Amino acid sequence: MSVSLGIGPDMNDITTELDHLIKRSKIENGVLCANVVGSTGSITSIEFEPGVVKDLKEAIDRLAPPGMPYAHEQAWHDGNGHSHVQAALLGPSIAIAVRNGRLRLGTWQQVVVINHDNHARNRLIEITITGV
Amino acid sequence: MSVSLGIGPDMNDITTELDHLIKRSKIENGVLCANVVGSTGSITSIEFEPGVVKDLKEAIDRLAPPGMPYAHEQAWHDGNGHSHVQAALLGPSIAIAVRNGRLRLGTWQQVVVINHDNHARNRLIEITITGV
Amino acid sequence: MSVSLGIGPDMNDITTELDHLIKRSKIENGVLCANVVGSTGSITSIEFEPGVVKDLKEAIDRLAPPGMPYAHEQAWHDGNGHSHVQAALLGPSIAIAVRNGRLRLGTWQQVVVINHDNHARNRLIEITITGV
Repeated sequence: MSVSLGIGPDMNDITTELDHLIKRSKIENGVLCANVVGSTGSITSIEFEPGVVKDLKEAIDRLAPPGMPYAHEQAWHDGNGHSHVQAALLGPSIAIAVRNGRLRLGTWQQVVVINHDNHARNRLIEITITGV
Repeated sequence: MSVSLGIGPDMNDITTELDHLIKRSKIENGVLCANVVGSTGSITSIEFEPGVVKDLKEAIDRLAPPGMPYAHEQAWHDGNGHSHVQAALLGPSIAIAVRNGRLRLGTWQQVVVINHDNHARNRLIEITITGV
Repeated sequence: MSVSLGIGPDMNDITTELDHLIKRSKIENGVLCANVVGSTGSITSIEFEPGVVKDLKEAIDRLAPPGMPYAHEQAWHDGNGHSHVQAALLGPSIAIAVRNGRLRLGTWQQVVVINHDNHARNRLIEITITGV
Protein backbone atom coordinates (compact mmCIF):
# COMPACT_ATOMS: atom_id res chain seq x y z
CA MET A 1 0.00 0.00 0.00
CA SER A 2 1.05 3.65 -0.28
CA VAL A 3 0.29 6.92 1.45
CA SER A 4 0.69 10.43 0.09
CA LEU A 5 2.56 12.71 2.51
CA GLY A 6 3.78 16.31 2.53
CA ILE A 7 7.21 17.76 3.33
CA GLY A 8 8.70 15.95 6.32
CA PRO A 9 8.16 15.38 9.04
CA ASP A 10 4.63 14.59 7.89
CA MET A 11 2.59 11.57 8.93
CA ASN A 12 -0.71 9.82 8.41
CA ASP A 13 -2.80 7.12 10.07
CA ILE A 14 -2.94 3.84 8.09
CA THR A 15 -4.78 1.70 10.68
CA THR A 16 -8.03 1.44 8.72
CA GLU A 17 -6.20 0.33 5.57
CA LEU A 18 -4.23 -2.25 7.57
CA ASP A 19 -7.44 -3.65 9.08
CA HIS A 20 -8.91 -3.93 5.55
CA LEU A 21 -5.86 -5.88 4.40
CA ILE A 22 -6.21 -8.23 7.39
CA LYS A 23 -9.89 -8.77 6.58
CA ARG A 24 -9.02 -9.58 2.96
CA SER A 25 -6.34 -12.06 4.08
CA LYS A 26 -8.94 -13.90 6.23
CA ILE A 27 -6.28 -14.29 8.93
CA GLU A 28 -7.86 -14.12 12.38
CA ASN A 29 -4.85 -14.53 14.67
CA GLY A 30 -1.21 -13.84 13.96
CA VAL A 31 1.03 -10.87 13.34
CA LEU A 32 1.22 -8.02 10.84
CA CYS A 33 4.69 -6.75 9.88
CA ALA A 34 4.94 -3.44 8.06
CA ASN A 35 8.06 -1.75 6.68
CA VAL A 36 8.55 1.51 4.83
CA VAL A 37 10.29 1.21 1.46
CA GLY A 38 12.89 3.98 1.25
CA SER A 39 15.46 5.37 3.66
CA THR A 40 13.65 8.62 4.50
CA GLY A 41 10.45 7.10 5.87
CA SER A 42 9.58 5.48 9.19
CA ILE A 43 6.66 3.80 10.95
CA THR A 44 5.45 3.83 14.55
CA SER A 45 2.21 4.16 16.56
CA ILE A 46 0.64 7.22 18.20
CA GLU A 47 -2.70 8.58 19.31
CA PHE A 48 -3.47 10.19 15.97
CA GLU A 49 -4.87 13.58 16.97
CA PRO A 50 -3.58 17.00 15.83
CA GLY A 51 -1.85 17.81 19.12
CA VAL A 52 0.27 14.65 19.29
CA VAL A 53 1.04 14.94 15.57
CA LYS A 54 2.39 18.48 16.09
CA ASP A 55 4.33 17.50 19.22
CA LEU A 56 5.90 14.47 17.54
CA LYS A 57 6.90 16.49 14.46
CA GLU A 58 8.67 19.00 16.71
CA ALA A 59 10.43 16.25 18.67
CA ILE A 60 11.60 14.61 15.43
CA ASP A 61 13.03 17.91 14.24
CA ARG A 62 14.86 18.25 17.57
CA LEU A 63 16.51 14.82 17.05
CA ALA A 64 18.01 15.95 13.74
CA PRO A 65 17.23 19.62 12.97
CA PRO A 66 16.85 20.58 9.29
CA GLY A 67 19.12 23.61 9.74
CA MET A 68 22.27 21.78 10.90
CA PRO A 69 25.25 20.96 8.67
CA TYR A 70 25.14 17.34 7.43
CA ALA A 71 27.89 15.35 5.71
CA HIS A 72 25.28 13.77 3.43
CA GLU A 73 24.32 17.26 2.32
CA GLN A 74 27.89 18.31 1.59
CA ALA A 75 28.28 15.33 -0.77
CA TRP A 76 24.85 15.16 -2.41
CA HIS A 77 23.31 18.65 -2.10
CA ASP A 78 19.77 17.32 -1.98
CA GLY A 79 18.91 19.09 1.26
CA ASN A 80 17.69 16.03 3.15
CA GLY A 81 20.57 15.12 5.48
CA HIS A 82 18.25 15.52 8.48
CA SER A 83 15.62 13.28 6.81
CA HIS A 84 18.00 10.31 6.65
CA VAL A 85 19.03 10.65 10.29
CA GLN A 86 15.47 11.09 11.57
CA ALA A 87 14.20 8.02 9.70
CA ALA A 88 17.09 5.82 10.90
CA LEU A 89 16.48 6.78 14.53
CA LEU A 90 12.74 6.02 14.37
CA GLY A 91 13.21 2.79 12.44
CA PRO A 92 11.68 1.26 9.31
CA SER A 93 9.35 -1.41 10.71
CA ILE A 94 6.76 -2.56 13.24
CA ALA A 95 5.21 -5.92 14.14
CA ILE A 96 1.70 -5.80 15.63
CA ALA A 97 -0.47 -8.69 16.78
CA VAL A 98 -3.62 -9.62 14.82
CA ARG A 99 -6.48 -10.78 17.04
CA ASN A 100 -10.02 -11.59 15.90
CA GLY A 101 -9.21 -10.32 12.43
CA ARG A 102 -7.97 -6.91 13.55
CA LEU A 103 -4.79 -5.18 14.73
CA ARG A 104 -4.47 -5.51 18.51
CA LEU A 105 -3.94 -1.84 19.39
CA GLY A 106 -5.25 0.39 22.14
CA THR A 107 -8.43 2.38 21.59
CA TRP A 108 -6.44 5.59 21.14
CA GLN A 109 -3.50 4.03 19.32
CA GLN A 110 -3.01 4.18 15.55
CA VAL A 111 -0.25 3.07 13.18
CA VAL A 112 1.34 6.01 11.39
CA VAL A 113 3.72 6.25 8.45
CA ILE A 114 6.10 9.20 8.59
CA ASN A 115 7.73 10.94 5.64
CA HIS A 116 10.97 12.65 6.71
CA ASP A 117 12.07 13.73 3.22
CA ASN A 118 12.31 17.43 2.32
CA HIS A 119 9.66 17.15 -0.36
CA ALA A 120 6.25 15.52 -0.66
CA ARG A 121 6.45 11.76 -1.19
CA ASN A 122 4.11 8.94 -2.01
CA ARG A 123 5.45 6.51 0.60
CA LEU A 124 5.24 2.81 -0.11
CA ILE A 125 4.66 0.43 2.81
CA GLU A 126 5.09 -3.31 2.43
CA ILE A 127 2.71 -5.39 4.55
CA THR A 128 3.13 -9.04 5.53
CA ILE A 129 0.38 -10.79 7.50
CA THR A 130 1.16 -14.21 9.01
CA GLY A 131 -1.17 -16.46 10.98
CA VAL A 132 -4.29 -18.61 10.76
CA MET B 1 0.38 -10.61 29.41
CA SER B 2 0.48 -7.45 31.52
CA VAL B 3 2.97 -5.63 33.71
CA SER B 4 2.27 -3.14 36.47
CA LEU B 5 4.37 0.01 36.14
CA GLY B 6 4.72 3.32 37.99
CA ILE B 7 4.66 6.90 36.71
CA GLY B 8 6.62 7.13 33.46
CA PRO B 9 9.21 6.64 32.42
CA ASP B 10 9.10 3.38 34.37
CA MET B 11 10.10 -0.03 33.04
CA ASN B 12 10.32 -3.69 33.95
CA ASP B 13 11.98 -6.85 32.67
CA ILE B 14 9.55 -9.35 31.09
CA THR B 15 12.11 -11.84 29.73
CA THR B 16 11.27 -14.65 32.17
CA GLU B 17 7.55 -14.36 31.38
CA LEU B 18 8.28 -14.42 27.64
CA ASP B 19 10.41 -17.55 28.02
CA HIS B 20 7.55 -19.19 29.94
CA LEU B 21 5.15 -18.37 27.12
CA ILE B 22 7.57 -19.88 24.59
CA LYS B 23 7.85 -23.04 26.69
CA ARG B 24 4.07 -23.32 26.85
CA SER B 25 3.79 -22.86 23.07
CA LYS B 26 6.23 -25.79 22.56
CA ILE B 27 7.84 -23.77 19.73
CA GLU B 28 11.57 -24.45 19.59
CA ASN B 29 12.68 -22.27 16.67
CA GLY B 30 11.01 -19.19 15.23
CA VAL B 31 10.33 -15.62 16.26
CA LEU B 32 8.50 -13.86 19.08
CA CYS B 33 6.77 -10.56 18.27
CA ALA B 34 5.63 -8.36 21.13
CA ASN B 35 3.69 -5.10 20.99
CA VAL B 36 2.47 -2.76 23.68
CA VAL B 37 -1.27 -2.05 23.62
CA GLY B 38 -1.73 1.69 24.14
CA SER B 39 -0.03 4.78 22.74
CA THR B 40 1.96 5.70 25.87
CA GLY B 41 3.93 2.47 26.21
CA SER B 42 6.96 1.11 24.39
CA ILE B 43 9.18 -1.97 24.31
CA THR B 44 12.93 -2.45 23.79
CA SER B 45 15.86 -4.41 25.25
CA ILE B 46 18.48 -3.35 27.82
CA GLU B 47 20.84 -4.80 30.40
CA PHE B 48 18.28 -4.65 33.19
CA GLU B 49 20.32 -3.32 36.12
CA PRO B 50 19.50 -0.21 38.22
CA GLY B 51 22.19 1.97 36.61
CA VAL B 52 21.07 1.44 33.01
CA VAL B 53 17.42 1.79 34.06
CA LYS B 54 18.16 5.20 35.63
CA ASP B 55 20.28 6.33 32.65
CA LEU B 56 17.64 5.29 30.13
CA LYS B 57 14.84 7.03 32.08
CA GLU B 58 16.87 10.26 32.02
CA ALA B 59 17.63 9.95 28.30
CA ILE B 60 13.92 9.36 27.56
CA ASP B 61 13.01 12.49 29.50
CA ARG B 62 15.59 14.44 27.48
CA LEU B 63 13.94 13.30 24.21
CA ALA B 64 10.61 14.80 25.30
CA PRO B 65 10.86 16.58 28.65
CA PRO B 66 7.74 16.54 30.89
CA GLY B 67 8.04 20.28 31.56
CA MET B 68 7.77 21.51 27.95
CA PRO B 69 4.60 22.94 26.37
CA TYR B 70 2.78 20.30 24.27
CA ALA B 71 -0.06 20.84 21.80
CA HIS B 72 -1.69 17.60 23.03
CA GLU B 73 -1.73 19.09 26.51
CA GLN B 74 -3.34 22.34 25.38
CA ALA B 75 -6.23 20.40 23.83
CA TRP B 76 -6.71 17.57 26.33
CA HIS B 77 -5.25 18.79 29.65
CA ASP B 78 -4.28 15.29 30.77
CA GLY B 79 -0.66 16.22 31.41
CA ASN B 80 0.88 13.48 29.27
CA GLY B 81 1.97 15.25 26.08
CA HIS B 82 5.55 14.13 26.69
CA SER B 83 4.40 10.51 27.23
CA HIS B 84 2.92 10.26 23.74
CA VAL B 85 6.05 11.66 22.08
CA GLN B 86 8.45 9.46 24.07
CA ALA B 87 6.50 6.27 23.28
CA ALA B 88 6.28 7.06 19.55
CA LEU B 89 10.04 7.66 19.33
CA LEU B 90 10.92 4.38 21.06
CA GLY B 91 8.34 2.35 19.15
CA PRO B 92 5.59 -0.13 20.06
CA SER B 93 7.11 -3.48 19.04
CA ILE B 94 10.05 -5.87 18.86
CA ALA B 95 10.72 -9.17 17.06
CA ILE B 96 13.23 -11.51 18.71
CA ALA B 97 14.41 -14.93 17.51
CA VAL B 98 13.38 -18.07 19.41
CA ARG B 99 16.12 -20.73 19.50
CA ASN B 100 16.01 -24.00 21.45
CA GLY B 101 12.77 -22.92 23.10
CA ARG B 102 14.11 -19.60 24.43
CA LEU B 103 14.54 -15.99 23.35
CA ARG B 104 17.89 -15.57 21.59
CA LEU B 105 19.26 -12.64 23.60
CA GLY B 106 22.67 -11.81 25.02
CA THR B 107 23.52 -12.90 28.57
CA TRP B 108 23.13 -9.34 29.84
CA GLN B 109 20.19 -8.41 27.61
CA GLN B 110 16.56 -8.36 28.74
CA VAL B 111 13.29 -7.32 27.12
CA VAL B 112 11.70 -4.37 28.93
CA VAL B 113 8.28 -2.78 28.71
CA ILE B 114 8.23 0.96 29.36
CA ASN B 115 5.32 3.00 30.68
CA HIS B 116 5.63 6.63 29.59
CA ASP B 117 2.26 7.80 30.94
CA ASN B 118 2.05 10.33 33.78
CA HIS B 119 0.34 7.90 36.11
CA ALA B 120 0.83 4.26 37.08
CA ARG B 121 -0.46 1.85 34.44
CA ASN B 122 -1.04 -1.85 34.12
CA ARG B 123 0.48 -2.18 30.63
CA LEU B 124 -0.84 -4.89 28.34
CA ILE B 125 1.60 -6.59 25.94
CA GLU B 126 0.39 -8.79 23.12
CA ILE B 127 2.69 -11.70 22.31
CA THR B 128 2.76 -13.72 19.07
CA ILE B 129 5.11 -16.71 18.77
CA THR B 130 5.60 -18.23 15.31
CA GLY B 131 7.72 -21.25 14.38
CA VAL B 132 8.08 -24.99 14.79
CA MET C 1 25.51 -14.20 11.18
CA SER C 2 28.05 -11.77 12.67
CA VAL C 3 29.66 -8.48 11.71
CA SER C 4 32.94 -7.06 12.95
CA LEU C 5 32.58 -3.43 14.08
CA GLY C 6 34.84 -0.78 15.60
CA ILE C 7 34.37 1.44 18.65
CA GLY C 8 30.78 2.67 18.81
CA PRO C 9 28.91 4.15 17.27
CA ASP C 10 30.12 2.12 14.30
CA MET C 11 27.90 0.43 11.71
CA ASN C 12 27.97 -1.74 8.64
CA ASP C 13 25.63 -2.76 5.82
CA ILE C 14 24.43 -6.39 6.04
CA THR C 15 21.89 -6.30 3.18
CA THR C 16 23.87 -8.53 0.81
CA GLU C 17 24.36 -11.18 3.51
CA LEU C 18 20.65 -11.08 4.34
CA ASP C 19 19.71 -11.55 0.68
CA HIS C 20 22.08 -14.54 0.54
CA LEU C 21 20.37 -16.09 3.57
CA ILE C 22 16.97 -15.56 1.92
CA LYS C 23 18.21 -17.24 -1.27
CA ARG C 24 19.49 -20.21 0.72
CA SER C 25 16.16 -20.51 2.57
CA LYS C 26 14.33 -20.71 -0.80
CA ILE C 27 11.61 -18.50 0.66
CA GLU C 28 10.14 -16.21 -2.00
CA ASN C 29 7.53 -14.25 -0.07
CA GLY C 30 7.32 -13.59 3.65
CA VAL C 31 9.19 -11.61 6.27
CA LEU C 32 12.73 -11.48 7.64
CA CYS C 33 13.16 -10.66 11.33
CA ALA C 34 16.61 -9.72 12.58
CA ASN C 35 17.71 -8.99 16.14
CA VAL C 36 21.07 -8.04 17.61
CA VAL C 37 22.32 -10.34 20.38
CA GLY C 38 23.67 -8.12 23.17
CA SER C 39 22.45 -4.97 24.86
CA THR C 40 24.91 -2.53 23.24
CA GLY C 41 23.96 -3.20 19.61
CA SER C 42 21.06 -2.06 17.45
CA ILE C 43 19.70 -2.49 13.94
CA THR C 44 17.94 -0.10 11.54
CA SER C 45 18.01 0.93 7.86
CA ILE C 46 19.79 3.83 6.16
CA GLU C 47 21.16 4.89 2.80
CA PHE C 48 24.59 3.40 3.44
CA GLU C 49 26.93 6.10 2.16
CA PRO C 50 29.73 7.81 4.15
CA GLY C 51 27.82 11.06 4.67
CA VAL C 52 24.72 9.50 6.24
CA VAL C 53 26.91 7.16 8.30
CA LYS C 54 28.79 10.15 9.76
CA ASP C 55 25.58 12.14 10.34
CA LEU C 56 23.87 9.21 12.07
CA LYS C 57 26.89 8.54 14.31
CA GLU C 58 26.84 12.17 15.43
CA ALA C 59 23.08 12.11 16.08
CA ILE C 60 23.43 8.91 18.11
CA ASP C 61 26.14 10.53 20.23
CA ARG C 62 23.84 13.52 20.80
CA LEU C 63 21.10 11.18 22.13
CA ALA C 64 23.43 9.85 24.81
CA PRO C 65 26.84 11.57 24.76
CA PRO C 66 29.87 9.49 25.81
CA GLY C 67 31.14 12.26 28.10
CA MET C 68 28.10 12.49 30.40
CA PRO C 69 27.90 10.93 33.89
CA TYR C 70 26.01 7.61 33.82
CA ALA C 71 24.70 5.59 36.77
CA HIS C 72 25.73 2.38 34.99
CA GLU C 73 29.27 3.71 34.85
CA GLN C 74 29.35 4.60 38.55
CA ALA C 75 28.44 1.00 39.43
CA TRP C 76 30.37 -0.96 36.81
CA HIS C 77 33.24 1.28 35.63
CA ASP C 78 33.29 -0.21 32.15
CA GLY C 79 32.94 3.14 30.41
CA ASN C 80 29.93 2.20 28.28
CA GLY C 81 26.97 3.84 30.02
CA HIS C 82 26.18 5.80 26.86
CA SER C 83 26.35 2.61 24.75
CA HIS C 84 23.52 0.98 26.69
CA VAL C 85 21.27 4.03 26.41
CA GLN C 86 21.95 4.54 22.69
CA ALA C 87 21.19 0.91 21.83
CA ALA C 88 17.96 0.87 23.86
CA LEU C 89 16.68 4.01 22.11
CA LEU C 90 17.38 2.65 18.61
CA GLY C 91 16.01 -0.80 19.38
CA PRO C 92 17.23 -4.37 18.91
CA SER C 93 15.16 -5.59 15.95
CA ILE C 94 13.59 -5.04 12.53
CA ALA C 95 11.06 -6.94 10.41
CA ILE C 96 11.37 -6.46 6.63
CA ALA C 97 9.22 -7.99 3.90
CA VAL C 98 10.69 -10.64 1.57
CA ARG C 99 9.41 -10.37 -2.02
CA ASN C 100 10.60 -12.43 -4.99
CA GLY C 101 13.35 -13.92 -2.87
CA ARG C 102 14.82 -10.57 -1.74
CA LEU C 103 14.40 -7.97 0.99
CA ARG C 104 11.79 -5.42 -0.09
CA LEU C 105 13.80 -2.23 0.50
CA GLY C 106 14.21 0.99 -1.44
CA THR C 107 17.02 1.28 -4.00
CA TRP C 108 19.03 3.50 -1.64
CA GLN C 109 18.05 1.71 1.57
CA GLN C 110 20.26 -0.81 3.37
CA VAL C 111 19.98 -2.71 6.65
CA VAL C 112 22.74 -1.72 9.08
CA VAL C 113 23.92 -3.22 12.36
CA ILE C 114 25.27 -0.69 14.84
CA ASN C 115 27.80 -1.34 17.59
CA HIS C 116 27.40 1.18 20.41
CA ASP C 117 29.94 -0.37 22.77
CA ASN C 118 33.12 1.48 23.72
CA HIS C 119 35.36 -1.16 22.16
CA ALA C 120 35.40 -3.12 18.92
CA ARG C 121 32.88 -5.96 18.89
CA ASN C 122 32.03 -8.88 16.69
CA ARG C 123 28.26 -8.36 16.77
CA LEU C 124 26.01 -11.38 16.42
CA ILE C 125 22.68 -10.98 14.59
CA GLU C 126 20.02 -13.65 14.72
CA ILE C 127 17.96 -13.98 11.52
CA THR C 128 14.55 -15.62 11.17
CA ILE C 129 12.94 -15.90 7.72
CA THR C 130 9.28 -16.95 7.56
CA GLY C 131 7.17 -17.48 4.44
CA VAL C 132 6.70 -19.66 1.39
